[in-house]
Amino acid sequence: MSTIKAGIIGATGYAGAELARLLMSHPHVTLAAVSSVSYEGKTLAEIYPNFIGVTDLILEDADAVIEKSDVVFASLPHGLCEPIAKKCVEKGRTFIDLGADFRLYDEADYNEWYGLSYKEKELHDLAVYCIPELDRQKAKGAKIIANPGCYVTCSSLGLAPLVKSGLADLKHVIIDAKSGVTGAGRGLSLTTHYPECNEAFSPYKIASHRHTPEIEQNLSALAGEKVTLTFVPHLLPVNRGIVSTIYVDMTKPSSAEALHKMYADFYQDEEFVTVLPLGDIVNLKNVRCTNNCQISVHYDKRTDRAILVSAIDNMVKGAAGQAIQNMNLVLGLPENAGLKLIAPIF
Amino acid sequence: MSTIKAGIIGATGYAGAELARLLMSHPHVTLAAVSSVSYEGKTLAEIYPNFIGVTDLILEDADAVIEKSDVVFASLPHGLCEPIAKKCVEKGRTFIDLGADFRLYDEADYNEWYGLSYKEKELHDLAVYCIPELDRQKAKGAKIIANPGCYVTCSSLGLAPLVKSGLADLKHVIIDAKSGVTGAGRGLSLTTHYPECNEAFSPYKIASHRHTPEIEQNLSALAGEKVTLTFVPHLLPVNRGIVSTIYVDMTKPSSAEALHKMYADFYQDEEFVTVLPLGDIVNLKNVRCTNNCQISVHYDKRTDRAILVSAIDNMVKGAAGQAIQNMNLVLGLPENAGLKLIAPIF
Amino acid sequence: MSTIKAGIIGATGYAGAELARLLMSHPHVTLAAVSSVSYEGKTLAEIYPNFIGVTDLILEDADAVIEKSDVVFASLPHGLCEPIAKKCVEKGRTFIDLGADFRLYDEADYNEWYGLSYKEKELHDLAVYCIPELDRQKAKGAKIIANPGCYVTCSSLGLAPLVKSGLADLKHVIIDAKSGVTGAGRGLSLTTHYPECNEAFSPYKIASHRHTPEIEQNLSALAGEKVTLTFVPHLLPVNRGIVSTIYVDMTKPSSAEALHKMYADFYQDEEFVTVLPLGDIVNLKNVRCTNNCQISVHYDKRTDRAILVSAIDNMVKGAAGQAIQNMNLVLGLPENAGLKLIAPIF
Amino acid sequence: MSTIKAGIIGATGYAGAELARLLMSHPHVTLAAVSSVSYEGKTLAEIYPNFIGVTDLILEDADAVIEKSDVVFASLPHGLCEPIAKKCVEKGRTFIDLGADFRLYDEADYNEWYGLSYKEKELHDLAVYCIPELDRQKAKGAKIIANPGCYVTCSSLGLAPLVKSGLADLKHVIIDAKSGVTGAGRGLSLTTHYPECNEAFSPYKIASHRHTPEIEQNLSALAGEKVTLTFVPHLLPVNRGIVSTIYVDMTKPSSAEALHKMYADFYQDEEFVTVLPLGDIVNLKNVRCTNNCQISVHYDKRTDRAILVSAIDNMVKGAAGQAIQNMNLVLGLPENAGLKLIAPIF
Repeated sequence: MSTIKAGIIGATGYAGAELARLLMSHPHVTLAAVSSVSYEGKTLAEIYPNFIGVTDLILEDADAVIEKSDVVFASLPHGLCEPIAKKCVEKGRTFIDLGADFRLYDEADYNEWYGLSYKEKELHDLAVYCIPELDRQKAKGAKIIANPGCYVTCSSLGLAPLVKSGLADLKHVIIDAKSGVTGAGRGLSLTTHYPECNEAFSPYKIASHRHTPEIEQNLSALAGEKVTLTFVPHLLPVNRGIVSTIYVDMTKPSSAEALHKMYADFYQDEEFVTVLPLGDIVNLKNVRCTNNCQISVHYDKRTDRAILVSAIDNMVKGAAGQAIQNMNLVLGLPENAGLKLIAPIF
Repeated sequence: MSTIKAGIIGATGYAGAELARLLMSHPHVTLAAVSSVSYEGKTLAEIYPNFIGVTDLILEDADAVIEKSDVVFASLPHGLCEPIAKKCVEKGRTFIDLGADFRLYDEADYNEWYGLSYKEKELHDLAVYCIPELDRQKAKGAKIIANPGCYVTCSSLGLAPLVKSGLADLKHVIIDAKSGVTGAGRGLSLTTHYPECNEAFSPYKIASHRHTPEIEQNLSALAGEKVTLTFVPHLLPVNRGIVSTIYVDMTKPSSAEALHKMYADFYQDEEFVTVLPLGDIVNLKNVRCTNNCQISVHYDKRTDRAILVSAIDNMVKGAAGQAIQNMNLVLGLPENAGLKLIAPIF
Repeated sequence: MSTIKAGIIGATGYAGAELARLLMSHPHVTLAAVSSVSYEGKTLAEIYPNFIGVTDLILEDADAVIEKSDVVFASLPHGLCEPIAKKCVEKGRTFIDLGADFRLYDEADYNEWYGLSYKEKELHDLAVYCIPELDRQKAKGAKIIANPGCYVTCSSLGLAPLVKSGLADLKHVIIDAKSGVTGAGRGLSLTTHYPECNEAFSPYKIASHRHTPEIEQNLSALAGEKVTLTFVPHLLPVNRGIVSTIYVDMTKPSSAEALHKMYADFYQDEEFVTVLPLGDIVNLKNVRCTNNCQISVHYDKRTDRAILVSAIDNMVKGAAGQAIQNMNLVLGLPENAGLKLIAPIF
Repeated sequence: MSTIKAGIIGATGYAGAELARLLMSHPHVTLAAVSSVSYEGKTLAEIYPNFIGVTDLILEDADAVIEKSDVVFASLPHGLCEPIAKKCVEKGRTFIDLGADFRLYDEADYNEWYGLSYKEKELHDLAVYCIPELDRQKAKGAKIIANPGCYVTCSSLGLAPLVKSGLADLKHVIIDAKSGVTGAGRGLSLTTHYPECNEAFSPYKIASHRHTPEIEQNLSALAGEKVTLTFVPHLLPVNRGIVSTIYVDMTKPSSAEALHKMYADFYQDEEFVTVLPLGDIVNLKNVRCTNNCQISVHYDKRTDRAILVSAIDNMVKGAAGQAIQNMNLVLGLPENAGLKLIAPIF
């Protein structure tokens, strides 16, 4: 298998840098170019000393990345990727967007939640949104991949089997999610200033986070009807990881055993999704630094409510790892290439 | 005002030691005696070096504490307090139980959730369960105080105005709570071993935590009907503090403004409960080391669901501080005596 | 005793805000005014929500603080306090500077380490540098107090008895210090961005930190000769606290017992300095949120080297608490007024 | 290259489990068997849920491991490995001891620091102590490898060039080391109980830690004379990593530049040791989860003292990774096989 040249636009943000780290160990890929607006001209290792002795790559501009790469990843704030995607399509590069610009199929949603319009509508017709475990068949050969949001991946995988089963009361879906601080990125803020963030905890963007319509888009597709839910994220004083605790009323009484079987069956062939044995409970630490999603299934008999707990590493399955998984699917590589990661125990 | 002699049975557990710390600064109290089964004969400062130079108290046995004190606090595992309460009543001591033995009015609940029966039923008729902001009028002159659980205090204060209003759909109350690790006490376990607890996060005792019937007892009293709810606690990698994110369906559509007014009015005369300005969001750090509860009120217009966020310090308002507040009420002291604590900023 | 009006210039930095918190509980002080360049016009509680319900103070400008206060504290970056001190002296206010502008007696040192000159030399003649345990007699009635640096206080207290004894080899004094992140202040930086600071550890300003000449100034005064030492600070992933591990060669062999007696005798009358029992080891957590310094004394028989470990809370004994202690001394108040703080256990 | 069967005795301690994790990704190794006294009969994935879906290995006893493996690793408390080593030698297995039993060449040192004697002296003649960067040539074909201690590796690599140069004043070597909590292992203790360990910091075993004679053994070999030094470890509230800040007096004045060149030359061919560019400072986070050692070189001109800062991951280069590096050397595999690990950025 010949080596694929990959490039990263926005390589010094957290997701971009994690992507660089993972691509450097991918058996079929060479990291060919990286760019950064803030640090152009410096080496990647100057910005992240963990790369000293590992790579001599110099941060260039976006055009240089597109020029040198077969596959172009972008990890940028929303609103910047249409022109990049356009260039990639014109030059025959595969474009994988870790940001939000191609995630929402309905432009009205993008307009409502992000305050922007689509300028290049035909690009959006080319774009494929893909959580591989739910959308795998759509990815092969895609020109543009919209890589899903972190909270979205965790919550959608946690809800998919139940929502698809028709047994969920879709008016009563509540997602209480908690994310490590890398989810907020590398930009400085008082909220993420160590003394204000350590020994602290709070929700944020209550019922107004931009990942809400994307979760609903996924669940609506599974349910075959419009789903509207409550989503509340919290900032957790850890570096990495997301745990979603999900509450769903049932259309008729069920049991932990029945739900567990439903989930185990749904994900039985998935390498990256593990349904824990009945009785076990998900812990964020067991998926850290991996592309895995662990899910535990619970049932509150007193209120006839399903409780799903799902965890991912927000930087890997929630960003860089899933982007690589998507690249593998697009290019017909083994889906797990470069992603056989085992969580460190501590 | 003459000085009250206070004693603590179980002074080397976390709640007992925090109580010792707070009582040492109480203007109307002398900490007269402390006991510990594990460390009897040692000084308190040998066990907790923060007390070096502050107190020379020696850990004695429970009988010595009862003998030397006007008010006896106990902070023990459940199932041990009936004989202590009995002795206190016989000797005319006020007894304040930080544990669970007198919290549930219905023995059937105690039997179901704790697996034990009441041996001294007449003591339970004497016992007064008291969250001061909800039950203040019952405390004065009480012989036995059942001090509420930490999760219970946080959740009950967060829910009380809405549940009492009659506007809550009592079939749809979900409490997603997160507690710092001191809530698990000083007993050693793998779960609280630093390398397993740090950079980790998970729920535990999903829909089966013993504080559930106690929360329901409080809410049922406010609602005038039986409330059954879903309660899921999580272990948060911080030392102190609880945040409860509470989801309640409404019986009819409302608004953030209306709910906020309801909460502000309900707690307008309370020194220890603050309803944040509309738009602000509770953060655990702002109540740390205080007897305060901060609550923020939110409304999800898309699903017509109220979202309440409440935070307390589990060791103070959730245990030792509320026990002192209750003592103040019982004895007719100013309710805030010894409790004018300002949270450190970091 | 009539109430003293205190004001804080720079009240929204960490030291200023901690000072505000402590002054609010001082029995002889009213916090009369606070200022902030960044947040003028807002309430202090808007900036720090732990003050909601505690104070309605509005942030003003520095002149307003000087006007309204008997004692003016300033907590500002270096280079800004001479004009403030001048106004205070002219108006008869006591001025207490938590910053560095009046700490170094020798202008050449200030010039070398801070790159600035003294513009108002006569003010420096008025200024009294005071670690109370070492310089107490100088403080009473002072018009300007130079409040010592955090690392300086911790290290000087840890070294004073041995350096004064004449038994230290003054050519071989090494201070390896570790500070919590609040020591870096509230200003944002990548170094203190949570994901870069958490699960990380490193020294900084190796042998070049500005507290070096101040420590040397203190030790030279005690030794009666010029001391030059090696000082290396490290950034510790905790919010508060400093631990200094200090290595000193002896001019002749000694023992742990002899050194311990020397230290215990030296500090026997000090309320805020505790020499731990021989064999115990200092832990940062036992001084957190207090004005205390704990010191443990050790001896390496294999190399005939004394090892001293001292710990303080950098924000209290290292800044705001010591400033209050100094204020108490200047004004003839009980030295411990407002400072009877007991460390929380966790 | 045929696959090597590796086994781990003591696979559920932290070093053993980390070794399991790394061996599972080693290109020339199959993890054939694992043992645990505490958990025999359970699967490894039941003890560490990060292994769910990765391995079905069942914990057996030590004999089963020896039987099934070409290379046997042991990670056990000291005093237990002589009989295991004996069996391995008899059966022709390579034995790699991650514990202390074969580290000290001089039995008197073992007796003094560990309180035990050697029972099988001839085994100790077979044993090879090996930090590869210092002792590489001794490892090939060894029957027993004594894998160095974590603090020892970090400190020895940080000191080797200077000690070997003859420019170090060997009477004035001080190592102030800080280790993450995994260094204390998985055994429960109050010291490592989360609420006592978080937001805390202290030294321990001051000038009495068992790694002291092992560091001295290494440095004495490099210096050609007996080295006696001061070593003080501290417990750092992070999961992984060691930073050693090392102070060395010089026999004659030098400079940062000269020292830096000495270090860069010494390690120029080493893949796992990086000397940072002059002016940069080591941070623990940049070596986390890798087999790398990063070293920065500093010089205090005011006292003519060299300051070296070295960092490793205590679980990888300080234990499991170095054990694999040693295995690679013994068996003639590429030294970096299974160890091309890139530190996660956060």
